[in-house]
Amino acid sequence: MSEILKQHLNQIVSLDKDELKQILLFFKSKSIHKKQFVIQENQLVDEVFFVESGLLKCSFVDETGKEHIMQFACENWWISDFSAFFKKEKSTLSVECIKEAKLLSISFLELELLCKKYPKMEHFFRIKSNLGYVALQKRILSLMTQSAKIRYENFCNQYPNIIKKVPKIQIANYLGVSRETLSRLQK
Amino acid sequence: MSEILKQHLNQIVSLDKDELKQILLFFKSKSIHKKQFVIQENQLVDEVFFVESGLLKCSFVDETGKEHIMQFACENWWISDFSAFFKKEKSTLSVECIKEAKLLSISFLELELLCKKYPKMEHFFRIKSNLGYVALQKRILSLMTQSAKIRYENFCNQYPNIIKKVPKIQIANYLGVSRETLSRLQK
Repeated sequence: MSEILKQHLNQIVSLDKDELKQILLFFKSKSIHKKQFVIQENQLVDEVFFVESGLLKCSFVDETGKEHIMQFACENWWISDFSAFFKKEKSTLSVECIKEAKLLSISFLELELLCKKYPKMEHFFRIKSNLGYVALQKRILSLMTQSAKIRYENFCNQYPNIIKKVPKIQIANYLGVSRETLSRLQK
Repeated sequence: MSEILKQHLNQIVSLDKDELKQILLFFKSKSIHKKQFVIQENQLVDEVFFVESGLLKCSFVDETGKEHIMQFACENWWISDFSAFFKKEKSTLSVECIKEAKLLSISFLELELLCKKYPKMEHFFRIKSNLGYVALQKRILSLMTQSAKIRYENFCNQYPNIIKKVPKIQIANYLGVSRETLSRLQK
């Protein structure tokens, strides 16, 4: 049983031991190694992943081959190609492991079943989704209003653990700046 | 009773007449005129708004006085400073009426009560939030990967009604380009 998922859920909803035990049965464990993909482009996506340990990235590769990073995910984060997952479309993003990871996955049908059976879980995922929504609004405003320098500084303050574990080029690909710009900012 | 909200809810959840009647009691009607604000900066935000008719914008004004538009909202859309609303913080965004509007508002407590009393409504708002989340992911990718020209063309295709009703400068402020750039793109 996943202590880390339990703690994560209990930050928003109050679940007793028996409920937690039942809820965890909806998830499957998965260990993945560095450079392994859990989602590749142009596939149907039937899982979201909760990260118990390790580090992953979710990226879009444009027609020139340049990578753009939508999100990183370390311990306690959820990751997938959410658009493909929710809309049952083929993926435009990929999800790749950066640092050996332990994941818990849940399928679309199991997630819906879980929410139906446990109203507390529907509440949990509504609140998580709301918080995710406002975090993305903040990122949009940051892209529209802040200089690369400020975006980099904010990223360092917000995600000190990720900065240490991720190659510079990936930080640049998340911030939407070139590697050269990022190198200048780091001086 | 709001036919438009009923239809909107029924796109995601199946509610009978009596449920709809009870649910609508959680909302208050509000008419607002052009240039009127429903949210101003630096206030506590206790309402989200469903737009029955008209048009609004949600904006951030930076320290130089430049406006950046986070979202427009016409018929069937929800609008607020969602970050301030969900996190109970003071607003950094404002919400202003562009075209005379009829709104339905719901407070934070009433929304939570509604979701608790009607699991279908918790489901509705989870699904809406998920769809909102992936729409924002798409906008982030668009800001990171697409030229101003492509962003403008996509906006025209996606929101033909908004293009007709909104001054050019506001389209530019949504797309994150200058008015001069937008004028060039429109030729």
